[in-house]
Amino acid sequence: MRKARKFNDLSKVTIVGVGLLGGSIGLAVRAAGSRCLRVGIGRRRRSIERARRLGAIDQATTSFRRGLRDAELVIVATPLGQFEQVFTAMAGHLPAGCVITDVGSAKVQPTRLAEGILPPRVRFVGSHPIAGSEKAGVEFARAELFCNAPCIVTPSTTSDRASVGLVVSFWRALGCRVRRLSPERHDRLMASLSHLPHMVASCLVLLAAEDRALDLAGPGLMDTTRIASGQPALWCDILRCNRRPALLALRRLQKRLTDFGRALQAPDDKELMKILRSAKRRRDALIRSKPARRERQP
Amino acid sequence: MRKARKFNDLSKVTIVGVGLLGGSIGLAVRAAGSRCLRVGIGRRRRSIERARRLGAIDQATTSFRRGLRDAELVIVATPLGQFEQVFTAMAGHLPAGCVITDVGSAKVQPTRLAEGILPPRVRFVGSHPIAGSEKAGVEFARAELFCNAPCIVTPSTTSDRASVGLVVSFWRALGCRVRRLSPERHDRLMASLSHLPHMVASCLVLLAAEDRALDLAGPGLMDTTRIASGQPALWCDILRCNRRPALLALRRLQKRLTDFGRALQAPDDKELMKILRSAKRRRDALIRSKPARRERQP
Repeated sequence: MRKARKFNDLSKVTIVGVGLLGGSIGLAVRAAGSRCLRVGIGRRRRSIERARRLGAIDQATTSFRRGLRDAELVIVATPLGQFEQVFTAMAGHLPAGCVITDVGSAKVQPTRLAEGILPPRVRFVGSHPIAGSEKAGVEFARAELFCNAPCIVTPSTTSDRASVGLVVSFWRALGCRVRRLSPERHDRLMASLSHLPHMVASCLVLLAAEDRALDLAGPGLMDTTRIASGQPALWCDILRCNRRPALLALRRLQKRLTDFGRALQAPDDKELMKILRSAKRRRDALIRSKPARRERQP
Repeated sequence: MRKARKFNDLSKVTIVGVGLLGGSIGLAVRAAGSRCLRVGIGRRRRSIERARRLGAIDQATTSFRRGLRDAELVIVATPLGQFEQVFTAMAGHLPAGCVITDVGSAKVQPTRLAEGILPPRVRFVGSHPIAGSEKAGVEFARAELFCNAPCIVTPSTTSDRASVGLVVSFWRALGCRVRRLSPERHDRLMASLSHLPHMVASCLVLLAAEDRALDLAGPGLMDTTRIASGQPALWCDILRCNRRPALLALRRLQKRLTDFGRALQAPDDKELMKILRSAKRRRDALIRSKPARRERQP
């Protein structure tokens, strides 16, 4: 089998798990002008066939053997909790030189699993496109999902230069702004940028609900708690998969909240104003740094 | 002077501080079909004149004496930190039977100030319309700001039935869903529904900034930290004004975060799933309970 070096060289891509993310990848591959064969592997015949009918993939199968034959790039887009099972099912059917990546929101554990389970004849390079929605299912897939979204690529000990290059060119072709980080650094960053906000949003909405006055909630509470609507099973997976960094981020936040409380109790406004001003400056900069990215509404 | 009993009976309304909220009140009074005279009192001639030119008020003045003459309803719409000064300046010029309300985000302290400073011939009834924007200034005022917004009216020891009735009918005419609460209960609720989310948003954005990777922020961090863009001086006022309930809310959140961390460390997913499911259920209900209210975007 010819080795693909770049997105344009790909003649067969296999997507394992064709839901919102996997489906959007399929659509985006076609929208990016590639003519490669897009194969989807799913657990249930019915749902993987639906993905094919929606145009997210060209071929649908429930068989790893058939789906992985001649695949040059495999993207695992199942929930994190299924990775071990999926890697094990894939292992015997991966062609030599094949590059495997994923879309999981944690990277240390999936990389460790890949290194332990996948055969030495293939290369694993983790990915995390920071895009998504509270919506689940291939019905909500769209080719533009990755447009201007950050994507973190996390080379591991089993990835070589060429495989990293292929994965980077893949996400770039789909519209992502790619950044390379080690799996460890990725997980630490995501703990504070994504997993912590989710934990906090959940706690905030539960606390507010306790007071039985949610009808009085203003836009502030609506915004800060929006992500608490995410799918519990998915988030349980993510948090368990990134447990240590998530716990560390929790502790760091607790420390900051304690400092905030102390500033609030101080005899003058100096410290409180310092925190509020500095937070505003950071948040304002955050908006300016994302001109092309639409913020979410629901 | 004739006593106004309801919104429709009003012949003169005075707004003290004509910024985003005060200006929107002026516009909404006219939009609600009232022909009453709308007078605005401001500290600076230039800015209060601008409010008049924008149609938010009919008469602009920097004089409390002139602005309060024959006023039936006075709405104090300055930042909380100016209330003491404003009440003191108003005290000598308020006509007998005049009803005073405000739009402050805390209610115990303003009520206490009003009771201590305003003369016995007038009635104070606190209000808190839960509407606003990170934007400041009369330029951003709009008549629809209060449409379907909750407004909490907080009767105090100086308010009688008639004055409470007038204030309630006023906010209803402007489009608010009015709810009566004691000043104490208001402050406790706002601490968890509004002040806590603000403190948390500030801490989250500072923590994320510490990692120097804000360019990787996804929609989750954007949503949870949006309100940290609010005006520091305004929020400093609000938090200082509602210090005890805000500190209590902080402690309640800390407790919940600790419980969350414990669930994350548990050997199984049971407790974690319970928290995530319950939070999702609450947040989903929150959306359903607000069909008419648009969520904010910026």
